[in-house]
Amino acid sequence: MISLEELQLAARNHGLPLEALQQPITPTGLHYLLIHYDIPFVDAGSWTLTVDGAVERPLRLTLEELLARDAVEHAVTMECAGNGRAFLDPHVVSQPWLRDAVGTARWRGAALRSLLDEAGPHADAVDVAFTGLDRGVEAEIEQAYARSVPLDEARRDDVLLAYEMNGAPLLPQHGYPVRLVVPGWYGMTNVKWLSRITVLAEPFDGYQQTRAYRMRADDTDEGTAVQRMVPRSLLVPPGIPEFLTRARTLAAGSCVLRGRAWSGHAPIERVDVSVDGGATWQPARLDPDELGRWAWRGWSSDWDAGPGTWRVGSRARDAAGNEQPLDPTWNVGGYANNAVQWVDVTVA
Amino acid sequence: MISLEELQLAARNHGLPLEALQQPITPTGLHYLLIHYDIPFVDAGSWTLTVDGAVERPLRLTLEELLARDAVEHAVTMECAGNGRAFLDPHVVSQPWLRDAVGTARWRGAALRSLLDEAGPHADAVDVAFTGLDRGVEAEIEQAYARSVPLDEARRDDVLLAYEMNGAPLLPQHGYPVRLVVPGWYGMTNVKWLSRITVLAEPFDGYQQTRAYRMRADDTDEGTAVQRMVPRSLLVPPGIPEFLTRARTLAAGSCVLRGRAWSGHAPIERVDVSVDGGATWQPARLDPDELGRWAWRGWSSDWDAGPGTWRVGSRARDAAGNEQPLDPTWNVGGYANNAVQWVDVTVA
Repeated sequence: MISLEELQLAARNHGLPLEALQQPITPTGLHYLLIHYDIPFVDAGSWTLTVDGAVERPLRLTLEELLARDAVEHAVTMECAGNGRAFLDPHVVSQPWLRDAVGTARWRGAALRSLLDEAGPHADAVDVAFTGLDRGVEAEIEQAYARSVPLDEARRDDVLLAYEMNGAPLLPQHGYPVRLVVPGWYGMTNVKWLSRITVLAEPFDGYQQTRAYRMRADDTDEGTAVQRMVPRSLLVPPGIPEFLTRARTLAAGSCVLRGRAWSGHAPIERVDVSVDGGATWQPARLDPDELGRWAWRGWSSDWDAGPGTWRVGSRARDAAGNEQPLDPTWNVGGYANNAVQWVDVTVA
Repeated sequence: MISLEELQLAARNHGLPLEALQQPITPTGLHYLLIHYDIPFVDAGSWTLTVDGAVERPLRLTLEELLARDAVEHAVTMECAGNGRAFLDPHVVSQPWLRDAVGTARWRGAALRSLLDEAGPHADAVDVAFTGLDRGVEAEIEQAYARSVPLDEARRDDVLLAYEMNGAPLLPQHGYPVRLVVPGWYGMTNVKWLSRITVLAEPFDGYQQTRAYRMRADDTDEGTAVQRMVPRSLLVPPGIPEFLTRARTLAAGSCVLRGRAWSGHAPIERVDVSVDGGATWQPARLDPDELGRWAWRGWSSDWDAGPGTWRVGSRARDAAGNEQPLDPTWNVGGYANNAVQWVDVTVA
């Protein structure tokens, strides 16, 4: 059961309607959104980006200057670290995600590395903090949203200061005019409405780094910062839904089950499908890898659906050997619950 | 308290984050969405629109043919009939809207009237049913979403078969390629993924007309079909939010409260604002009427915010004398709850 406070979050922050998994690139407006505070409506003309901290040459760029730099583009699947939280028991109070906090977009922007190289991090630099223009209160601390990435990771070729999403300027809710995109990492990394990049000689100690977004087994556990996405596969719910319950009805006959799978750790190597709640599994076909390493991989599986009630699900494994579990592992913040999705289908 | 089933709906169907009330036209992707079944991804090349039933000359148009007709455009505020449902007591189980199921867009399309005139309704025609391509199950009945509008109303100048929203083709979730837009009426009227227009010599008896979307005082009441939006005013929540509770904190000093108000019955005539939970009210200034009759009207009110805890709200009245109530009127379906919105603000 969900409280009115959690419902307030669920009404603001929306998931991907799973039928939209049919599309390799998520249609505009259907990509998941998690907005901690309020959306700032930023005046791009007066916006600047500061690079400071433990660097030789602090920088300050206008949007025009950022747009003039070499551009790179990647298709990236982004997922909220809290995806799956609402299925945990005991209940974890926060944004009550089911399993649809995900989306894939083509992000285009300037390479973060080129800016870092230009600024020249000090030899003892280890971490890079990113601060947005969105302000709010958490744990009674007034703050701007900020999160860090280790310097080695921040220097990856494919880390972007993105100013375009699917060929258009970012929408306000996706971080206009500029956001960070770190492919393979959970969404909390990808700071929106980016205003400051601070290179640090010691690990960042901001609220979102040291208190929120940590994998903690219990209240006494300091835990570790949430980073890369663990593997997950989702399927397009077969058939048609009942309005309220979303229960699915499908006509008997041959049917192609389809879905998408991703992992921030390594490429998807295998997806298995079950129509009997996990009693038996069979391997799905992986679609051609058209979107590249950082986007989800399509898959399909034939099903001769006979009359009756079926429980359909899929299970992904990545090339590093990580596989979706059948049951979630509870943790204090309710993060990274990638347990297999089951969809009940009545075939008639 | 909200069930997991209701949460499934809240995760799919999203509201307007209220800070976006700052914008006269709702940014793409932030307009509210209520999708009964699954979003159909329609092939515009093979899509056709049929006009049939009690007409002299049934029509069938391709998208190209519809686009070639004279175009009209209106800025329209659209609101779900269930907006405010989650505040009703006893609880009504359905999409659990708070009060943010609203948005304003510029809709462009062909005038419905010109098509109806061309088809030539029979002399005894009274109603027009609109059927979408979205299919699902409600009350154990498999159905395509369909809803009707009385013929007189359907012949209004400003009723659109819309194919553009804010200057771009409709997004899939807003009814691509074509949807109905009846300015002033609640959202359930504005059938998406429109495929058929059927003129009827008797009132439409479809599920959404005779069973859902009716104002019913209790289970024995047959009720009347929900039609026009009752007046509502919403305000941009002042200050900054706490992440989980959305509780607002504002710095002491002079502040301008802003919001927007609308009514489907008549133009907004007056908005009053209270900062003390309704103990006292003062009139707000109405912004110039820039978007026309069918869009919300901006308003503002100065507030010298002193330290303490305040309960801020606004109350709209239209030129037909309809005014927002302080307390909701319960009804079986949980429709049209336009009770005043209160926002608690701590000023420090």
